[in-house]
Amino acid sequence: MKPTRYAALAAAIEQAIAGGVLRPGDRLPSVRQTCVSHAASASTVFQAYYLLEARGLIRARARSGWFVTEATRAAPPEPAASSAPDGAAVQLDISAMVFDILGASMSRAVVPFGSAFPGPELFPLARLGQALAGAAQSLDPWATVDDLTPGLARLRRQIARRYLADGIAVDPDEIVIANGALEALNLCLAAVTRPGDAVLVESPCFYGALQALERQGLRAVEVPTHPRDGIDLGALDAAIARHAPRAVWLMPGFQNPLGALMPEPNKRALVALLARHAIPLIEDDVYGELWFGERRPLPAKAFDTAGLVLHCSSFSKSLAPGYRIGWAIPGRFRQAVARHKLSFSIATSAPAQMALAAYLERGGYDRHLRRLRETLRLRQASVLRAIAAHFPEGTRATRPEGGYFTWVELPAGADALALHRRALAAGISVAPGPIFSAARGFRNCLRINCGHAWDERAATALATLGRLAQPG
Amino acid sequence: MKPTRYAALAAAIEQAIAGGVLRPGDRLPSVRQTCVSHAASASTVFQAYYLLEARGLIRARARSGWFVTEATRAAPPEPAASSAPDGAAVQLDISAMVFDILGASMSRAVVPFGSAFPGPELFPLARLGQALAGAAQSLDPWATVDDLTPGLARLRRQIARRYLADGIAVDPDEIVIANGALEALNLCLAAVTRPGDAVLVESPCFYGALQALERQGLRAVEVPTHPRDGIDLGALDAAIARHAPRAVWLMPGFQNPLGALMPEPNKRALVALLARHAIPLIEDDVYGELWFGERRPLPAKAFDTAGLVLHCSSFSKSLAPGYRIGWAIPGRFRQAVARHKLSFSIATSAPAQMALAAYLERGGYDRHLRRLRETLRLRQASVLRAIAAHFPEGTRATRPEGGYFTWVELPAGADALALHRRALAAGISVAPGPIFSAARGFRNCLRINCGHAWDERAATALATLGRLAQPG
Repeated sequence: MKPTRYAALAAAIEQAIAGGVLRPGDRLPSVRQTCVSHAASASTVFQAYYLLEARGLIRARARSGWFVTEATRAAPPEPAASSAPDGAAVQLDISAMVFDILGASMSRAVVPFGSAFPGPELFPLARLGQALAGAAQSLDPWATVDDLTPGLARLRRQIARRYLADGIAVDPDEIVIANGALEALNLCLAAVTRPGDAVLVESPCFYGALQALERQGLRAVEVPTHPRDGIDLGALDAAIARHAPRAVWLMPGFQNPLGALMPEPNKRALVALLARHAIPLIEDDVYGELWFGERRPLPAKAFDTAGLVLHCSSFSKSLAPGYRIGWAIPGRFRQAVARHKLSFSIATSAPAQMALAAYLERGGYDRHLRRLRETLRLRQASVLRAIAAHFPEGTRATRPEGGYFTWVELPAGADALALHRRALAAGISVAPGPIFSAARGFRNCLRINCGHAWDERAATALATLGRLAQPG
Repeated sequence: MKPTRYAALAAAIEQAIAGGVLRPGDRLPSVRQTCVSHAASASTVFQAYYLLEARGLIRARARSGWFVTEATRAAPPEPAASSAPDGAAVQLDISAMVFDILGASMSRAVVPFGSAFPGPELFPLARLGQALAGAAQSLDPWATVDDLTPGLARLRRQIARRYLADGIAVDPDEIVIANGALEALNLCLAAVTRPGDAVLVESPCFYGALQALERQGLRAVEVPTHPRDGIDLGALDAAIARHAPRAVWLMPGFQNPLGALMPEPNKRALVALLARHAIPLIEDDVYGELWFGERRPLPAKAFDTAGLVLHCSSFSKSLAPGYRIGWAIPGRFRQAVARHKLSFSIATSAPAQMALAAYLERGGYDRHLRRLRETLRLRQASVLRAIAAHFPEGTRATRPEGGYFTWVELPAGADALALHRRALAAGISVAPGPIFSAARGFRNCLRINCGHAWDERAATALATLGRLAQPG
């Protein structure tokens, strides 16, 4: 994970460009100056400059030095308005489409702008492996029997400590460990609904939520959601009156696919509104640790005094994707969720739980997270610049304050499903807008994953994507 | 796992008693004779005899030597007839009862006759830990991305090889890895049914199947099942005509709770019958490796030419309970099952998959299984002898040819739920009959787990249980 000296220097310069310290047309400090200011060798500085040149960020002019290119002008404008779904309750039929589209993207031969995970090289696999090897040696055969269904007590304690550090009081006994956040979310949904119920979701909405609703025979009501501030509370209130939903399923932090972050006052108002109606809130907070700001934005769970928030998260986006360890903090529904866990998959894989508990006990997670957030922030800036440079006139893209997605609105009339097919033929995946909507809307939209390595291959692929998106 | 010398000697003598070579009242060979015949020291022989004495199998008589006790007389008689449920389709409401009863048993302070798992000390945890540690060091970050939903290709290949060795042709690409067999079974059920459908099950039936049906809004039709031969094919045929079921869910091998093993001709006839009606068979084969006979009984899947058998199994009962690694071989429903896997939990924990793949590649699983089967066989004999010695007159118990359960029929009028409560107060768990029935029948029955260490504590607890079960 530790970057080489020249890569670190290149990242620092890239950050200066992203932050506007260096603007298009500006000349970079000379190699000699940079050697002095960064205490680096000339070879290191040259390597850094060549890397930035390969990424299209700077360009050498004969006998004048290096200059910041036009490709680095500001990110594209953000989409402005909330979405406007028609507000009907929809029977779902989306799983097959989602499976086909995602399945086609799952190959390391494809440039993964459609992927749901950040780059696998971002995670401390070696240190996790050490924790795993250590844990494997000291296994008590009875340990998994004791904590069978709620999950390893050591791991639950570590998770509770992290919430506590962020000012959120959680008791380890309130936590149920699951096979990733998606299982946790599915179990929570099963605990609070019966087939035929209406459930309110965001628009656009994480396709996993739509699939879960479909499988459990629920009706989805899509509620307008702002690309920056999240779900529209007025529209939510109106939808409650109209549909008497049994539950609301939201991602208040770095929403998938928009990246929207609900302001804390909105979250507080949301929790109060739902408490008045005694409606459970299923809160998907899997990107909660991936904030770019000053501190972790509080999840809705932090404002929950009625026990109506079923908060779910995982380590899959921030530490160990393949381990498939997530959890639910289901408030007053804890017993029901544990019951569904027992009857659906009995327990969660012990080696992964032990390894993560050992890793967290040893320390170093916060250090890893600081690096990860910084990397994701830089990669987002690179992707947004490239979109500004290569995508059709009139394209908009969200600039989330965390996570690793941007939601791209192509000019009206664009066909994201067709673009998905053309891109895949060129070895590039995207997540087209219609998979984020029960009504298959958002036909001119894409979700782009900014969390993979921003290298020559990625830069070329995004330029290709922009070309394929041109009208005509 | 390797038993000490004296424990091995004790096991050999116990086996001689179980097999009728030594009968109640017979005198054991003298210590001196045994030293010679087993090339053992006197101290080893004494330790073995003391162990057998502690278990109540032999008794010393002053100046005469050791004798086989009366407690070792033959096992209790087996239940004779098939169950006779009324054949109605039942809406289910059993999950809460099962959860409460099993939850109360999950403590290492309780003698686990109600447990669903064999003794945790039976598994090669140290060797699995080595495999895990090795696998952790060589992790390719992209490996989990490539095989995300179907599971690690290396592990699927090893599973396919085992089937092949038993004469069952399975392609690795037909396999979907899951979080234990129970998730695999749930995914298969979701793939072939819609809420409201009728599903045929055995009577008595694994409560996990009843819970799965309940959660998915299905109706259960219980079909009479013989304690030795499994489901009654005539009754099955009649139930198909009456209920037009969408699926059949069975355990043809060492059925839970009866231990019944369908003869292979019955399995062949079963598969042919269902193929005529185009009804999918969900086959739960989690005890398939735990046979006591000459060879592995073929599962129903071996006779499936139409792709209608969705075969599920796992390593949880035979190798690594806490790892939660199972699989489905869903025949023509492979794509649908993979889709449900993706939308329910995305993927299965990578460290556990890697460790099991490495363990299987290294060899030694068959050696472990031979020891495990032998241990389970001996423990079953011990439990059956103790039931014969301590339970009320008229008690019957099945004597399965594999697995680690016996189904105990107390005399008519006994109340297994009341016995469960009294036993738990005495620190002993049992699985009462009504949790194995949608109609909450089998009120005078218990499932007893024979798979835990047969030591003084267990022997005392089973004697206590027999006393608590006495009428009046």
